[in-house]
Amino acid sequence: MPPAFLTLPERTVKPRTTGLTHVLDKGRTIASISAVLAGAGAYIDVWKFGWGTAYLDEGLPDKLALLSTAGIRSCLGGTLLEIAWMQGKVEQCLDWAGQAGFDSIEVSRGVAPMSMADKHELLARAAARFVVLSEVGSKDPDDSRTADQWTKEIAGDLDAGASWVITEGRESGTVGIYHSDGSVREDIVAAAVRGASVDKLLFEAPRKDQQAWLIRAFGPDVNLANIPCDEAIALETLRLGLRADTCAVTRQRQPV
Amino acid sequence: MPPAFLTLPERTVKPRTTGLTHVLDKGRTIASISAVLAGAGAYIDVWKFGWGTAYLDEGLPDKLALLSTAGIRSCLGGTLLEIAWMQGKVEQCLDWAGQAGFDSIEVSRGVAPMSMADKHELLARAAARFVVLSEVGSKDPDDSRTADQWTKEIAGDLDAGASWVITEGRESGTVGIYHSDGSVREDIVAAAVRGASVDKLLFEAPRKDQQAWLIRAFGPDVNLANIPCDEAIALETLRLGLRADTCAVTRQRQPV
Amino acid sequence: MPPAFLTLPERTVKPRTTGLTHVLDKGRTIASISAVLAGAGAYIDVWKFGWGTAYLDEGLPDKLALLSTAGIRSCLGGTLLEIAWMQGKVEQCLDWAGQAGFDSIEVSRGVAPMSMADKHELLARAAARFVVLSEVGSKDPDDSRTADQWTKEIAGDLDAGASWVITEGRESGTVGIYHSDGSVREDIVAAAVRGASVDKLLFEAPRKDQQAWLIRAFGPDVNLANIPCDEAIALETLRLGLRADTCAVTRQRQPV
Repeated sequence: MPPAFLTLPERTVKPRTTGLTHVLDKGRTIASISAVLAGAGAYIDVWKFGWGTAYLDEGLPDKLALLSTAGIRSCLGGTLLEIAWMQGKVEQCLDWAGQAGFDSIEVSRGVAPMSMADKHELLARAAARFVVLSEVGSKDPDDSRTADQWTKEIAGDLDAGASWVITEGRESGTVGIYHSDGSVREDIVAAAVRGASVDKLLFEAPRKDQQAWLIRAFGPDVNLANIPCDEAIALETLRLGLRADTCAVTRQRQPV
Repeated sequence: MPPAFLTLPERTVKPRTTGLTHVLDKGRTIASISAVLAGAGAYIDVWKFGWGTAYLDEGLPDKLALLSTAGIRSCLGGTLLEIAWMQGKVEQCLDWAGQAGFDSIEVSRGVAPMSMADKHELLARAAARFVVLSEVGSKDPDDSRTADQWTKEIAGDLDAGASWVITEGRESGTVGIYHSDGSVREDIVAAAVRGASVDKLLFEAPRKDQQAWLIRAFGPDVNLANIPCDEAIALETLRLGLRADTCAVTRQRQPV
Repeated sequence: MPPAFLTLPERTVKPRTTGLTHVLDKGRTIASISAVLAGAGAYIDVWKFGWGTAYLDEGLPDKLALLSTAGIRSCLGGTLLEIAWMQGKVEQCLDWAGQAGFDSIEVSRGVAPMSMADKHELLARAAARFVVLSEVGSKDPDDSRTADQWTKEIAGDLDAGASWVITEGRESGTVGIYHSDGSVREDIVAAAVRGASVDKLLFEAPRKDQQAWLIRAFGPDVNLANIPCDEAIALETLRLGLRADTCAVTRQRQPV
């Protein structure tokens, strides 16, 4: 329980379906995950094992058990499934992910030469066994898909069985819905919101200025993804207007 | 005790009144604070709980007790007090900070529409119960205050009861005394030094090049703030000329 | 043992003489080193105590014992030896490093006014007692040495007794073999490879895009240095083609 002397925006509580914070794990130890959860477990909803890091992780089952106990979804990164798809090993990948204990899986076509139809077929296979977070947007900074294509792919992924759609930004925040300098491509964000209601979108937003922009645009309960594991509390202060970048929301000047 | 085969600059020792290292905590767990202190406790003087992170921290009293035992001041971030001021809850905020165990508090007007007179009144209220670190400079990159205004606000804050004055740089090092590319605004630093003796100033300097610039300008015992918690030892090597950026200070070439 | 459903490139195993991952420690606690090794010890070959951090480290012998047990070389940073050289304290520095338990030492002339002959003499003294990793390249972004000078210094250092030659990039990845924006100076990398076989070079590559470039150019077993300690698993996924930036190597599309 935080102290109660300030008036702050309402926030959803766990288990959340909106206002999600999704963190990116690039290969942490179980000890460091445990320490993160002790301080910030209440503010984390989805724990993503980035790209193929889970494949190299000998302590994976213990980590997934720890996350489950903390009420946090564990999600396999989409690149690993793409590689499995390219090698004709989708079923083996899904079997392994299930046995390891993942409850969620990302379905993307960020690197593989996958058509929309291929993606929807893969998504349906994954959705039969996992909660699916699909991803839209390329990791290529020169990607030329139009705003309209973003809208259609997002809507199509939800139709095909995705529970949420992630809009690409990478760990760097310099592709997908962002320009190469990290600023928001507002036309693409608008196109995303035409494809799905905001509570079905998970915006990758690794940088503070990106998080603040999305909170100002969509409110404290916008779903945000690819947050560095160590910054879940810092993000929560942004959501609640407890940091300069968003504190206009708490400006309710009263007599001192 | 370090080994003794090198000739290094003299450094102040704890409890320091100059040569301070002030670190910025963005929401760490107590386990990670404990680990930082084991390795670098001798090099840290002030531990700042950035902006409103302390408000969300259920383990706060234990952290403050740990810092006190290590001989490190614990300081509440100024943005939280600004928000409390905007909501007419200054007294409640000071009461809570005192009960939690803070010994220091930052007084700023980085986001609130606060006049100099408002700030001095707030500062005096805080100084009656805490060591006050005031902050000068806006978080707005387009802030237009003049060098002369920096000088006056710094001198005024000391008159009003501040023990040290922090010059703004943020976590990013791209506002306040820095240009947007992180380089030093030398005219503003000069203006700050006209407002207070260097040992009463705490320069926010999150980046290595900024730390090195200030150490070259003012010597190993310049007070530096907003240091990432993990980089206190790296900063100490800069102060002592044990890193390339500042090692001219140790160049006392003798016969090999 | 990772799962086995994907076809991945072959990788060398420990103790490695090529395919080395060399990490940069800026002043970590023993607890955090222990946590890193538990998760990523199999992927780390050399642990460098950056510049003069080891000089300030009271827990040094315990750390070096821990690294030795994990089959990881411990290497003293070159700047400290340069400072000792400038102060006429080379023998004292080597004695101290040996007593502390270092098995490797970096020999550089990144900041000291050292001639090639001076460097070779220092290198030979160090090589009598330690495995020597020499370093080539200045920390000065305006350094003007030619490609041909790179080739000659690298070849000369190997002749003088270095086991590997590190090409400068610093923690920032913005000098030496990199342009100030972090992109690779391809002519300098080519010059380095004319001076030594690739398996005798250790390329400093702190950034992901730099690591990916070198892996694409020289294969999964290129030796890479100055990797942040927390990113050894992330790097291993790059080597194995398990991340978008390098996964072309695993694109062996088969029927799904």
